[in-house]
Amino acid sequence: MKLRTQAAPDHLHNPVAIVGAGPAGLMLSHLLHLQGVESVVLEKQSRSEVESTVRAGILEQGTIDLLRKTGVGERLDREAEIDEGISVSIAGDSHRIDFAKYTGKQVAVYPQHEVLIDLIAQRLSDDGEIWFNTEVTAIDDHETDNPKVHYQAADGTSGVLSADFVIGADGSKSLTRKLITGAGGLRMKHEYPFAWFGIMVNAPQTAPELIYATHPAGFALISTRSEHVQRYYLQCDPEDTPDMWSDERIWEQLHLRADSDAVTVSEGEITDKAVLCFRSAVTDPMQRGRLFIAGDAAHTVPPTGAKCLNLAMADICALAPRLAHAVKKSDTSALDDYSKLALPRVWKTQHFSSWMSSMLHSVPGADQMSTQFQTNRRLAELSTVVTTDAGRQLLAQQYVGWDFPSIDSF
Amino acid sequence: MKLRTQAAPDHLHNPVAIVGAGPAGLMLSHLLHLQGVESVVLEKQSRSEVESTVRAGILEQGTIDLLRKTGVGERLDREAEIDEGISVSIAGDSHRIDFAKYTGKQVAVYPQHEVLIDLIAQRLSDDGEIWFNTEVTAIDDHETDNPKVHYQAADGTSGVLSADFVIGADGSKSLTRKLITGAGGLRMKHEYPFAWFGIMVNAPQTAPELIYATHPAGFALISTRSEHVQRYYLQCDPEDTPDMWSDERIWEQLHLRADSDAVTVSEGEITDKAVLCFRSAVTDPMQRGRLFIAGDAAHTVPPTGAKCLNLAMADICALAPRLAHAVKKSDTSALDDYSKLALPRVWKTQHFSSWMSSMLHSVPGADQMSTQFQTNRRLAELSTVVTTDAGRQLLAQQYVGWDFPSIDSF
Repeated sequence: MKLRTQAAPDHLHNPVAIVGAGPAGLMLSHLLHLQGVESVVLEKQSRSEVESTVRAGILEQGTIDLLRKTGVGERLDREAEIDEGISVSIAGDSHRIDFAKYTGKQVAVYPQHEVLIDLIAQRLSDDGEIWFNTEVTAIDDHETDNPKVHYQAADGTSGVLSADFVIGADGSKSLTRKLITGAGGLRMKHEYPFAWFGIMVNAPQTAPELIYATHPAGFALISTRSEHVQRYYLQCDPEDTPDMWSDERIWEQLHLRADSDAVTVSEGEITDKAVLCFRSAVTDPMQRGRLFIAGDAAHTVPPTGAKCLNLAMADICALAPRLAHAVKKSDTSALDDYSKLALPRVWKTQHFSSWMSSMLHSVPGADQMSTQFQTNRRLAELSTVVTTDAGRQLLAQQYVGWDFPSIDSF
Repeated sequence: MKLRTQAAPDHLHNPVAIVGAGPAGLMLSHLLHLQGVESVVLEKQSRSEVESTVRAGILEQGTIDLLRKTGVGERLDREAEIDEGISVSIAGDSHRIDFAKYTGKQVAVYPQHEVLIDLIAQRLSDDGEIWFNTEVTAIDDHETDNPKVHYQAADGTSGVLSADFVIGADGSKSLTRKLITGAGGLRMKHEYPFAWFGIMVNAPQTAPELIYATHPAGFALISTRSEHVQRYYLQCDPEDTPDMWSDERIWEQLHLRADSDAVTVSEGEITDKAVLCFRSAVTDPMQRGRLFIAGDAAHTVPPTGAKCLNLAMADICALAPRLAHAVKKSDTSALDDYSKLALPRVWKTQHFSSWMSSMLHSVPGADQMSTQFQTNRRLAELSTVVTTDAGRQLLAQQYVGWDFPSIDSF
C-alpha cells in the first residue's frame, strides 16, 4: 500500500494533483483510478481529522447510485437509513412529502464522514496516493501545460509537485479558488439573516423520517445519525454563541417548534453544540487554464437542503470523465465545457436551498406590518406546496436531486 | 326601472348598503338579488366613468363560471378571447404553460370594465338600485344593529341611509377599511422595487396567448384587449413618469425584451401611457360589527398575476350567501366566519402575485455580486418551473385560480 502521510520528494510528476481529501477530491481520485488515470490527493488535515469531522448527512439518489456503481456503497447499503419522504410540520400540523410517490427515488441518511471513510479505504486498497498532513501553500503555472503545486507537510518538509492538471477541492476557504477570482472570475454571494444552532444528542430516534418544522418561534430540523444518536437544529441568530443556548432552552424550543400530535422530540445527553452559518456563494467560471475547482471550493449552499456533498459529487461526475479523456488522449476540448456543464445545476441547487430556507425560517424585520406580511405570505406558499400534488412533487424532485451527469460518456 | 343617479331622500332603510360599484360591490348586489335580498350600491363616480376605467383583463376560471352561472356571462361568451395557456419567454427562449393540460381550466381575456358594463346592465334590468355620483362621507353605528351611511351627491344633496349591514367595496383608497384598521385591525404591506409602464396600442395581436417575458433589460408583458387593440407593459422604475418613455424607447424595449424566434411584438399607434405601481397589502380582519370589506378595499395585489378582480369575486362568493342568510334569518353566526374564510385565499393569491413578480422582474441592487447572485438564482428557479411538469402545473393551477367558495351553500 502506497499510503503516504507526509510530503514526497520534490518535483514528482503526476497526471492529476488534487487539493483536498473531501467528498469532491476523494471521489474524483476514485473515478479517475477506475478510468485508469492516477492522481495524488494532498490534504492539510490528518486522516483521523478527515474521518471524524461532522457535516451534513443526506445523500441524494444520484450520490447513492454513484457510490454503489463505483464499488463504494457496500457499507452504505448495510448501515444507512433509507428515507422515502420527509415531514413538513407547520406549527405542529404535519404534512408528509412522499418521495417514492412523486419521484420513485429515495435519500440515504449517511453522514459525510462515513462516505469519506469508505472512499479513503477504497483509495488506499487501490494503492491510491493520499498525502495527509500536507498543506498546499501555492499553485504556479496553471495557465501553462505544466502547473506546479507547492506544499508543506506537518513535519516541516516541503516540496513542489508538478502535474498535468490541478483540481481545487479544498473547501469553502479554498486557496485554489483565489487563482480564479483573482484573475477576473466572479464570486456571487448571498447572506441570510439567520443561522442554525446544531446539537448532537444521545437519544432514540424521534421519528422514522426527517421533520422540517416551521413555527412562529422559528425553524427546527429533527434529523438523525443512527438509532441512538440524533442531530437536531434550531434556527438562531447568526451572532448567537453556544453558551447562549442552555440545555433547558434547547429542549423547550425543540418541543415548542417541532412537537406535533404524532411526535414528541426525544431527549438525551447533548454531546455537541455548534452554530452553523448560512451563506450562499457561486464562483463562475470554475476553471482557469489547467486548474479546475469543485465542491465547496467553487460554491457554498446553506444547509437547509442538505445539498453540499451532493453538489460536490455532481461536479465530479461532470469533471472526471472529461479529465480522464484529457489525460489519456491529450485532448482538453471537453474540459473547456466543465463550468458550463456544472453551473446550471449549481444555480438550481442554490435556488432550492434558498427556497427551502426562506420558506421555513421566520425573518424578523424592522417594520412590524411588513414582517407580518412576509410571514403570512410565506406560510401561504408553504401551504400551497404541502397541500398540492404539484407543490409536493416540485419539492420532492429537488430534494432527491436531479439526475447526475453521466460518468461513462460525454 | 328604479335607476337612481343621485342621492335619495334621507333616512331610507335597506337591508344592505354597498359602498362602491366595482366588481365586488356589483357582484354582491347581483348575488344578493338572486337570493331575494335587495341592496343599494352607492358609487362616487358616474356610470360612464365606471364603465370606461381601464383595469386588468384576465378572468380566472372561477370568475368565468360565476358570471355564466349567475346569468351575466352572455357577452363574455360571445366576445372574450379564451386562453388555454401563456408563454414565458426567457431572453427570447419561449416556454408554453399549458393550462388545459395541467388543470383542465381556462382563463378569459375580458377587461374589468366590460364585466362592470354587464353587471350594471343586469342590475338595472333587475330594478337594482345603483346610486352613481354619490360619495359616502362617513359610516356610523356599524357596531350596532343599525349602521348608518352618510352620503353626498355630486349635485350637492346629502343624506343618511340606514341599513342592517354595510359592505365596503370602495377600492384601494377605501374609507370603510379605516373603520377596521382604526379599531385595531391590521394592515400588512409590502412594497416592490419596480413598477409597470403600461401602454394601449392600436395594433394587431402579437400572439394568440399572453407572453410573460423576462430579459436582462427587465420584464415585459404582451397582452391583448381585442383583435385590434393591444395592452403592453414594461418593467420600469416606480419613480418613472410617462414623459420619460418616448414611443421610440417603448418599441425598442418591447422588441428587446419580448421578441423571440417565433414572435415579433406588433406595433401601432399608442393611445395611452401610464405607470402602474406595485404594492401588496392585506387587512385582517375584513369585518367589524356589521361592516364587511371586500376586494381592493381589503387587499391590494401587484398586477403580475392579474388577480385583483378575481380575488374580489372570490371574497364576494364567501360573503354573499352568508349575508343573505343573515338578512333572511336574522342569524349572523355564519357571517362571523367571513374573514377566516376569505383570508387564506387572499394570502395564497398574494403569494402567487409576489412569486410571479419576483421570478420575472430584474431587481437592481447596491452590491453587484449580490445582485448577480439573485439574478442567477431567479433564472434557475424560472428554468426549474418552466421545464418540469410539477413547476408548470404549480404555476398553471395558481394562474387559472383555486376553486371559488360555493355561493349555494355554506
